[in-house]
Amino acid sequence: MTENIDKDSNVGIVKTNYFKFAEPPDEIILSSGEKFGPITIAYETYGKLNEEKNNTILVFHALTGDAHAAGFNSPEDKKPGRWDLMIGPKKPFDTDKYFVLCTNIIGGCKGSTGPSTIDPKTGKPYALSFPEITIKDMLIPQKKLLEHLGIESLFCVVGGSMGGMQALQWLVSYPDMSEGAMLIATSSTHTAQAIAFNSVGRYAIIQDPNWNNGNYYDAEKPDKGLSIARMIGHITYLSEESMHKKFGRRIIRSKSSHAGFADFTKEFEVENYLQYQGESFIKRFDANSYLYITKAIDDFDITDDFENLADSLKDIKAKCFVMSFTSDWLYPQEQSLKIVKALKINGIETTYTNFDSSYGHDSFLIDDERLKNLFAGFLKSIKGKTL
Amino acid sequence: MTENIDKDSNVGIVKTNYFKFAEPPDEIILSSGEKFGPITIAYETYGKLNEEKNNTILVFHALTGDAHAAGFNSPEDKKPGRWDLMIGPKKPFDTDKYFVLCTNIIGGCKGSTGPSTIDPKTGKPYALSFPEITIKDMLIPQKKLLEHLGIESLFCVVGGSMGGMQALQWLVSYPDMSEGAMLIATSSTHTAQAIAFNSVGRYAIIQDPNWNNGNYYDAEKPDKGLSIARMIGHITYLSEESMHKKFGRRIIRSKSSHAGFADFTKEFEVENYLQYQGESFIKRFDANSYLYITKAIDDFDITDDFENLADSLKDIKAKCFVMSFTSDWLYPQEQSLKIVKALKINGIETTYTNFDSSYGHDSFLIDDERLKNLFAGFLKSIKGKTL
Repeated sequence: MTENIDKDSNVGIVKTNYFKFAEPPDEIILSSGEKFGPITIAYETYGKLNEEKNNTILVFHALTGDAHAAGFNSPEDKKPGRWDLMIGPKKPFDTDKYFVLCTNIIGGCKGSTGPSTIDPKTGKPYALSFPEITIKDMLIPQKKLLEHLGIESLFCVVGGSMGGMQALQWLVSYPDMSEGAMLIATSSTHTAQAIAFNSVGRYAIIQDPNWNNGNYYDAEKPDKGLSIARMIGHITYLSEESMHKKFGRRIIRSKSSHAGFADFTKEFEVENYLQYQGESFIKRFDANSYLYITKAIDDFDITDDFENLADSLKDIKAKCFVMSFTSDWLYPQEQSLKIVKALKINGIETTYTNFDSSYGHDSFLIDDERLKNLFAGFLKSIKGKTL
Repeated sequence: MTENIDKDSNVGIVKTNYFKFAEPPDEIILSSGEKFGPITIAYETYGKLNEEKNNTILVFHALTGDAHAAGFNSPEDKKPGRWDLMIGPKKPFDTDKYFVLCTNIIGGCKGSTGPSTIDPKTGKPYALSFPEITIKDMLIPQKKLLEHLGIESLFCVVGGSMGGMQALQWLVSYPDMSEGAMLIATSSTHTAQAIAFNSVGRYAIIQDPNWNNGNYYDAEKPDKGLSIARMIGHITYLSEESMHKKFGRRIIRSKSSHAGFADFTKEFEVENYLQYQGESFIKRFDANSYLYITKAIDDFDITDDFENLADSLKDIKAKCFVMSFTSDWLYPQEQSLKIVKALKINGIETTYTNFDSSYGHDSFLIDDERLKNLFAGFLKSIKGKTL
């Protein structure tokens, strides 16, 4: 999901921290009613928490993200964190002013407790005994971490895609706890089409003979299924226009070679690219986490405990920034406009931009001055209030 | 790919015929230069060939189609052929006037020679020893069949999706041989995105352990891979709007059941629908045919032997009807407009409609009076010339 990420980082070397809930109680109550613990949460911070403890920007990651949003974890790292373009001194999320915090979600596989974590009760990975989690549940450990850090109020919550769902849910679950919110390329609930794409990805994983009902941690992993899921996802993250610009119909091998034909999946550059994306992904992601997280995304509906969308957003106190991208067909403009209308019905101060970009859903990850200016400008408009 | 197909058929019971090239020579020369034979072609006809032998409409099928376009093959059949809505007495392709012919393509698996056919030289299915085929190659046996039937000139060629590619290629390969042409929801070449979707489908098939390099005919078949390919394809055939109307976010089981959650792919109606589509498809289609045919589609580029699109269409004599559908995002309007512009540059009489429909790419299969009227009207406009 990365595009034109800077080779350098101004944040420099950062350490991933791990927050383990103090015991007892070391459990949280999930949306399902189930109690679950113990829980460890991986997180990173950039910049310094001010004395008033009111300069925190909480950044939520998308489906396949992690706590590593900026900087390098070691001098050997070739790429900085995925949003390094935006986070750092003099960058939109200016670490000279703001204290930026990003955690890996519960259910993930990058340091936070998830299906691949060892269950202390059995000494084996949870696998499918890991409980059902929702977008709302993802926020509970992040709230606990803030309490642990002594942060009672946030300057801003920020997220793109599933991160935007978390940001929206944050506003509903804790309406008094953030002064601003940036909801980027996101939705108040998934469309049937978006569910369909995720579902075929999950189907590919569970049909992989290596999946073995989720018990693959000491055997061959369901790499083929996970790879297919990632390839499907990746098509939906790009626009037709960006794919056309990037690959068009360029071929890798000569069409005349029957060997090339019989490979069936290695003629066009776009095929090679997707397979590379699939094969890279399986090295860094856990198939069960993919199942649990995409399920949480598909199940998300901010109106679940409310009459309608406007009703669900009625208590929000934050100033809101909503952004869609013209070429994003996975979370199209209409989805953002629904949120904007519901916010406005409630008289909530809201800025909306349908940003002109050809990069599709992933547009929020690209290096674009206009995008940076809009992000920085919105944060300054909140700053007028308290910072 | 069927929507609201009539329960009754006016064509009645039809028999599938098989045309085997006379020997010798029983081979054709493919685009690759390779000779291939023997070849059998399955075909059906509706209506009667007139004495002048100038009333033939040749209907080309799409990716997963076959020769069975109308009527029932037996009294036990529950559904008529896929375009029964359009083909029959007093229907747009009026069998009281026209002689409608539809063949299963070479490479297919419904009676025509394809990868699942027994190679007479080995006594085993061809599997991957089946040669590379192109859209152009698909026309050669159909041309031979016309010669066999004594038909030298066509009234009209008609096709949607891959069928439209065949119709377009027919006009280029045999520019003097048809008075009219209907190019529906099609393209002169696939976009990178369309290639990407097909490619992930092929990847799912060849990664299925049962695929076994194409040699599965006396063992378990790569049903899981083929099913995933079909599910991906099916999403692209529908529009977001039609999916939303049909399924929305309706669920099958209670969200509170953890068992339902752990199934991962059986909560939403849309998931169930896609799985049903996948599971039905594997009963009627051969995985190797899917590989060969989607590859032919992705490889298709009408400009291959020409300077540009206008140059490729310069010799066309037929009156052309081009139709796209407003909600078709797989073969969007722009693709049809490119063809229309190239036809107009050459002064070819062309009618174009961007038909307002919410059903996506599959719109040409729906029961819609406006659609029927447009089809019938165009055929009448050709009829002014010779019938």
